[in-house]
Amino acid sequence: MAYKETYPSQLLSNAVEAISSLPGVGRRSALRLALHLLKQPADSVHHFTGAINDLRDGVCYCRRCRMISDSEECAICSDMKRDHSVICVVESVRDVMSIEATGQYHGVYHVLGGIISPIAGVGPGDLTISELVARVAAGEASEVILALIGDVEGETTAFYIYRQIESYGVKVTSLARGLGFGDALEYADSLTLGRSITNRQLFKP
Amino acid sequence: MAYKETYPSQLLSNAVEAISSLPGVGRRSALRLALHLLKQPADSVHHFTGAINDLRDGVCYCRRCRMISDSEECAICSDMKRDHSVICVVESVRDVMSIEATGQYHGVYHVLGGIISPIAGVGPGDLTISELVARVAAGEASEVILALIGDVEGETTAFYIYRQIESYGVKVTSLARGLGFGDALEYADSLTLGRSITNRQLFKP
Repeated sequence: MAYKETYPSQLLSNAVEAISSLPGVGRRSALRLALHLLKQPADSVHHFTGAINDLRDGVCYCRRCRMISDSEECAICSDMKRDHSVICVVESVRDVMSIEATGQYHGVYHVLGGIISPIAGVGPGDLTISELVARVAAGEASEVILALIGDVEGETTAFYIYRQIESYGVKVTSLARGLGFGDALEYADSLTLGRSITNRQLFKP
Repeated sequence: MAYKETYPSQLLSNAVEAISSLPGVGRRSALRLALHLLKQPADSVHHFTGAINDLRDGVCYCRRCRMISDSEECAICSDMKRDHSVICVVESVRDVMSIEATGQYHGVYHVLGGIISPIAGVGPGDLTISELVARVAAGEASEVILALIGDVEGETTAFYIYRQIESYGVKVTSLARGLGFGDALEYADSLTLGRSITNRQLFKP
């Protein structure tokens, strides 16, 4: 829909411009958010912007796994109850949070900070792959789980990492792929369904 | 979906908390936005938060129509080419922008800053109705257009304002209601369609 953009105030225009730079936020939503913030007490707005500045300026990354952390070593890496011999390699901080939310994993992580993508201009050097290789070379792990997205870029990244670490004699695994819990066969895409059949498992009643 | 929220960093948790206080932004979106901001250069993030702080701290409201403005009198009120004898009464800044975008209106505005809503606890005293009455009482206008939303609260507000200004002998009008441009009859709600019939106009070929 065409919408002539004449803002009644330069300050409003600047704020809308800034807010609409966020991913998934259009100019109309940005205007709505700007006018919302304008209605809040000044203290609330300063608290809002302060929390964002504090995050950007104060955040640390774990020197071991590159996870976001408030200190030099993250809570997971400094937890001696976890199995430090299993490293789960993920794309992002969110993936760590998702896996942690399952409560099913007790090893440690390595956050790549992205995925190899020629289209997006992300090469192996932009990721923390050399740090991962160093961890493996130091004999830190007996198993590396490649928990990456199941598309071409994810598999390319997984393969690249595999080639880098295979010589160290570490066990390399990847996530099980197949139908999701509760998924109906008729709605599954054929690639997923095909893999589910190929990688079928012994029925354990 | 249940999502166990354990943030790897207090700073991240604070930022997510702040961002999810925005209307329409859930905690998952807030996390996505926080991690996006974290990936941006520090300068960009400071520019982002600065634009919001500047808006909140620096914005003015036009002393005449209460529109957002960078100065004491807004661009519309200080435009001598516009018809200052017609005042269009709207709920919000966004309504002014929407009407301006049509290019069909050449009068001035009055921004109420809300609508009378007993449920939301908004009474006439919370709006700029007395300022509007003062403008009418000063003989500023020959016509007042009540351009408010066509629901119970909008009509209540319109009626309240009408009662306040009718004694000044000003012409009071409201927006035409009916089918939208290009609307099919079969999809119109019966209230809108009913009004469209009642307020039918002479066909001008």
